[in-house]
Amino acid sequence: MALTHFDAKGDAHMVDVSEKAVTDRIATATGWIKMQRETFDIITEGRAKKGDVLGVARLAGIMAAKRTSDLIPLCHPLPITKVAVDLTPDADLPGIRITATVKTTGQTGVEMEALTAASTAALTAYDMSKAVDKAMEIGGIHVVLKDGGKSGRYEAS
Amino acid sequence: MALTHFDAKGDAHMVDVSEKAVTDRIATATGWIKMQRETFDIITEGRAKKGDVLGVARLAGIMAAKRTSDLIPLCHPLPITKVAVDLTPDADLPGIRITATVKTTGQTGVEMEALTAASTAALTAYDMSKAVDKAMEIGGIHVVLKDGGKSGRYEAS
Amino acid sequence: MALTHFDAKGDAHMVDVSEKAVTDRIATATGWIKMQRETFDIITEGRAKKGDVLGVARLAGIMAAKRTSDLIPLCHPLPITKVAVDLTPDADLPGIRITATVKTTGQTGVEMEALTAASTAALTAYDMSKAVDKAMEIGGIHVVLKDGGKSGRYEAS
Amino acid sequence: MALTHFDAKGDAHMVDVSEKAVTDRIATATGWIKMQRETFDIITEGRAKKGDVLGVARLAGIMAAKRTSDLIPLCHPLPITKVAVDLTPDADLPGIRITATVKTTGQTGVEMEALTAASTAALTAYDMSKAVDKAMEIGGIHVVLKDGGKSGRYEAS
Amino acid sequence: MALTHFDAKGDAHMVDVSEKAVTDRIATATGWIKMQRETFDIITEGRAKKGDVLGVARLAGIMAAKRTSDLIPLCHPLPITKVAVDLTPDADLPGIRITATVKTTGQTGVEMEALTAASTAALTAYDMSKAVDKAMEIGGIHVVLKDGGKSGRYEAS
Amino acid sequence: MALTHFDAKGDAHMVDVSEKAVTDRIATATGWIKMQRETFDIITEGRAKKGDVLGVARLAGIMAAKRTSDLIPLCHPLPITKVAVDLTPDADLPGIRITATVKTTGQTGVEMEALTAASTAALTAYDMSKAVDKAMEIGGIHVVLKDGGKSGRYEAS
Repeated sequence: MALTHFDAKGDAHMVDVSEKAVTDRIATATGWIKMQRETFDIITEGRAKKGDVLGVARLAGIMAAKRTSDLIPLCHPLPITKVAVDLTPDADLPGIRITATVKTTGQTGVEMEALTAASTAALTAYDMSKAVDKAMEIGGIHVVLKDGGKSGRYEAS
Repeated sequence: MALTHFDAKGDAHMVDVSEKAVTDRIATATGWIKMQRETFDIITEGRAKKGDVLGVARLAGIMAAKRTSDLIPLCHPLPITKVAVDLTPDADLPGIRITATVKTTGQTGVEMEALTAASTAALTAYDMSKAVDKAMEIGGIHVVLKDGGKSGRYEAS
Repeated sequence: MALTHFDAKGDAHMVDVSEKAVTDRIATATGWIKMQRETFDIITEGRAKKGDVLGVARLAGIMAAKRTSDLIPLCHPLPITKVAVDLTPDADLPGIRITATVKTTGQTGVEMEALTAASTAALTAYDMSKAVDKAMEIGGIHVVLKDGGKSGRYEAS
Repeated sequence: MALTHFDAKGDAHMVDVSEKAVTDRIATATGWIKMQRETFDIITEGRAKKGDVLGVARLAGIMAAKRTSDLIPLCHPLPITKVAVDLTPDADLPGIRITATVKTTGQTGVEMEALTAASTAALTAYDMSKAVDKAMEIGGIHVVLKDGGKSGRYEAS
Repeated sequence: MALTHFDAKGDAHMVDVSEKAVTDRIATATGWIKMQRETFDIITEGRAKKGDVLGVARLAGIMAAKRTSDLIPLCHPLPITKVAVDLTPDADLPGIRITATVKTTGQTGVEMEALTAASTAALTAYDMSKAVDKAMEIGGIHVVLKDGGKSGRYEAS
Repeated sequence: MALTHFDAKGDAHMVDVSEKAVTDRIATATGWIKMQRETFDIITEGRAKKGDVLGVARLAGIMAAKRTSDLIPLCHPLPITKVAVDLTPDADLPGIRITATVKTTGQTGVEMEALTAASTAALTAYDMSKAVDKAMEIGGIHVVLKDGGKSGRYEAS
């Protein structure tokens, strides 16, 4: 198997997708940000009273999905038709679990958009909370679903 | 303790740093992308012969550091004075370990720039390799060092 | 009636338009910037002799239309097929009347693109003239026409 | 008096501010978006229950302030040190009143940043509510305060 | 013949392409950067050992193609389907010859994207090498091939 | 001599300028776009009557200077304090000669900003005129002056 982002000489290029069919495509990525118990309590209580960390992070994730082809050098620009980013507090982590789903009708998949949305939502949650906790960790960023297009459906096992 | 990114009413705002001293600031963040052994072999061999995944990811990380205040809603724009992103293959992971260091001379820290650089380098490595491995996972994204500014030196334990 | 930009839980998302038909869409928005008589005279005479305020504002409006999905968090990126921004001096205002028309062939409307173009043209006119008049006011920004798509033709009454 | 954004030949240029002092600067701009009573009720009730229009608009305004020099052709890029955007429901309008305050420590003022923040917050409120009300109008966009720098304090009368 | 980027009044506008057919389009542009022999030797040897100037320039060219409609005021945003940028050392110049090819399936051509990619790759090569040679010159930037769309095939003679 | 944009391992990085003095810096770059006589006549007459190609190109050059650190991977973001772009018709070329001057008060030079402004102005002139002339050529892009900073004054011979 070969890395498609390089040509025969080994030089990076943006893959030619002009012959690929325009199809409905969807991808979902997840991740989490882990934090101290006290930080978790501030964020989750704060949602109602003192400031909506999750709301800001959700919006940052949605906007980042639209910037994916600006950030990832060999990504194609795509007409995104839907972005949803869910942030769910998980007291056992403790921290926030993030799920990002992106759809397009285009010639290539949107897993990079979903991953970028999830990552940026996590980074934003870090930014909003770093005054009380610098040791937070972001992890578990991976693709859980990708569908549409020639390579068929992929689901993380 | 309180989240500084919200005002007394709980509304998000960009914190006023105009009274903070202009000082030399540095931050380092790390993370990794884990992959199948076969993917690892393709990437690490490929560096010399078939395409430089790590070189592209490094550059994406450096450029992303400069876009941080565009991506993270409440981040201040900063005159970045240095960005270095190292990607080191780790056969035991197997995968790539990423370290991003950012410096500025400014009124607020650069840990978000370092985290954004590390995350984007990891996302780019995913993008370059996803044709052969969709199950790669990004994790371990955290701040290992932050120095300069009133709050003093922070090192991850 | 409900706000479509929120899901059932009340969380913001980018609405799924993937099932909507790809149709020709057009929108027109207008607005104005009101200024002192002296400022109006400088701008309108200046067009021929001393500097083309309206030409710069027109171009800024056109370019802003292309940045709409970057600025408005839940806007879809759209393949814009036409942008025209007209700036007409109105001695009775006194000031400049702005009309922006945007077209696309896509799955959702372009009224936000037209409103963003009109607003940015007005802001640019402010910027170009503020050395002589800080009291200028921008107003009357609204959609006058929207057509194409399922919801049919809308014209401001 | 002359328009500073043009040179002696009448050609647009970005004014040379390299000789101006680096000082603390602040600017405040206001504006409003007027809507039907029913729309106002949905937005203001929705804040608690069905979706936070004002929270999204606030964030869009803050982020737009950072993009001002990208949007307004002859604006200087500035190291913004604070942005706050307040959105207050006004039942008499009926609609939302917007106030944006921006600070910098730099060589030129931030009134364009404040105006851009207020305008973009209003445009975002339009976008979030347009499914129920296309006839909303944005107006009253003007500078209420500008201070710092050689030209001294300006307050709208 | 007339310049299509202006309307009947002579005002700049983004041309209406909504009636044009969606077709496969391709464009190729070339250019070069000329340098001192010593600089040429450092770059070409350096590729293997001391740093990959051409790899960084190639990536910058690819990314710039995606930014074309942001940079060129009246360019339409296009769903680019392929970008390839080749940089070939030419010892006789001495310097680097650059060829950029861009494809889209859309309503207008991609020659501006190809020209922007070639120019930006050359600028980046300048940036990477300017510590050793400030006198480098960029030239020969022109379209060598444009095909697809109503105006037919164009090849530079 | 060595290329400063690579570290000891040959990996690209953004050079650390945090120890460099903050000084006034200026750079001037020039270039030209050559065209057929008929195209030249349309553009130069058009300036007064049918559309201001040079005015649009000038503005595009100014705005591009502000985007330089977004486009050139290893460029530092800089607080630009002045940009001027002059476009002068030259009947002997025939074509347009472009001169771009950029100033900053910062820790590194602005020659890339000047080169990017000149290149983008030329590309925009191409875009505006390509309906009548596809064979135009951009060349002569080089730095004519760079001053400020430790390396002293450079003037093209």
